[in-house]
Amino acid sequence: MKLYSYFRSSAAYRVRIALNLKGIAAEQQAVHLVKPDPLPAFRRDVSPQGLIPAIEDQDGLIVQSVAIMEYLEERQPDPPLLPQGLAERAYVRAAALLVACDIHPLANLRVLRYLKHELGHDQDEVDTWYRHWVEDGLGRLEAFVAGSGRSGRFVHGDAPSMADCCLVPQLFNARRLNCAIDAFPTLLAIDAECAGLEAFRQAHPSVQPDAE
Amino acid sequence: MKLYSYFRSSAAYRVRIALNLKGIAAEQQAVHLVKPDPLPAFRRDVSPQGLIPAIEDQDGLIVQSVAIMEYLEERQPDPPLLPQGLAERAYVRAAALLVACDIHPLANLRVLRYLKHELGHDQDEVDTWYRHWVEDGLGRLEAFVAGSGRSGRFVHGDAPSMADCCLVPQLFNARRLNCAIDAFPTLLAIDAECAGLEAFRQAHPSVQPDAE
Repeated sequence: MKLYSYFRSSAAYRVRIALNLKGIAAEQQAVHLVKPDPLPAFRRDVSPQGLIPAIEDQDGLIVQSVAIMEYLEERQPDPPLLPQGLAERAYVRAAALLVACDIHPLANLRVLRYLKHELGHDQDEVDTWYRHWVEDGLGRLEAFVAGSGRSGRFVHGDAPSMADCCLVPQLFNARRLNCAIDAFPTLLAIDAECAGLEAFRQAHPSVQPDAE
Repeated sequence: MKLYSYFRSSAAYRVRIALNLKGIAAEQQAVHLVKPDPLPAFRRDVSPQGLIPAIEDQDGLIVQSVAIMEYLEERQPDPPLLPQGLAERAYVRAAALLVACDIHPLANLRVLRYLKHELGHDQDEVDTWYRHWVEDGLGRLEAFVAGSGRSGRFVHGDAPSMADCCLVPQLFNARRLNCAIDAFPTLLAIDAECAGLEAFRQAHPSVQPDAE
């Protein structure tokens, strides 16, 4: 399997964790999202929509980090990224999507660039935007997870799931951009548990082949 | 089953279509997202995070439209919202998530409000933002679907799926905000097919009990 990744992409980070948790070896090909040349070449040769992350194997090119995790789960169910039980699975997916739909898209590189270049906001205003949505979203996720009665060492019980794959990269970015995250003790405790697992450590942006 | 909905919410519209396609009857309870009173009451009585749409049944309260659709699919597989085949399922999920993660979050009511009230943009600038992200995202979805070799009358072949549940509400909103959508012939043809199905027609915002 091939993984098209960018070390700093939050969505690629999710997929790297999921692959590691599953124990699936993937040959990583870096596509630098900030330098001018790699993305046009990737669009020409691999994915016309330029979607990162993507994986490629016998089923072709698969995009969208949450769709990739669902695919990995169906292709190799063990160890699972989703718990047993319909209610439990819905809870994990909802937590994952709280990050993937409600937080990350607003803090994306292309959005921050648009605020700066097209709307003329200075870096301070862009940073304020970033912190607003990330802190707002993490606050809702904290309440959702803490109030669920379903969390344990991880978002669901004592095994990592799709939701932890989404949470950890979002917290990594929140720290990088100096968001106030002290108010989210449940999420921080889960993050600390994840940091103890090799699957999460080896997916960290700082240890990727294309890390700067 | 109970559905907490708001007639104009794009995510609630997705869930209404999915319920109709499955033939699952749900008692609809409207939560007006613009009037000042309903949301606090909903937060107090039902969902502390105030997440709309939500469904409630024997498995408790389930939130996040994509998680709700996956739940409905697992609870009642027939008729399916996902095709057979791992690659095909990944394609449908990716198309659904292109809308749910890459388009809709940037065109959300709370984001448009923030641009206006916190960042001081006038209505023209807010509308330009809206059209930019919706047209950009639909353009990528058009290329993704048209280039997949997998579309037919619907996003995948000749049966509606999770992806159509996401596409139709997004196009409805795009029209409402005067986005330029003529450049997306594949998506428009699928939208026209969907408009011929009772499941989609009865989920339309204009025929909901809380429609204004």
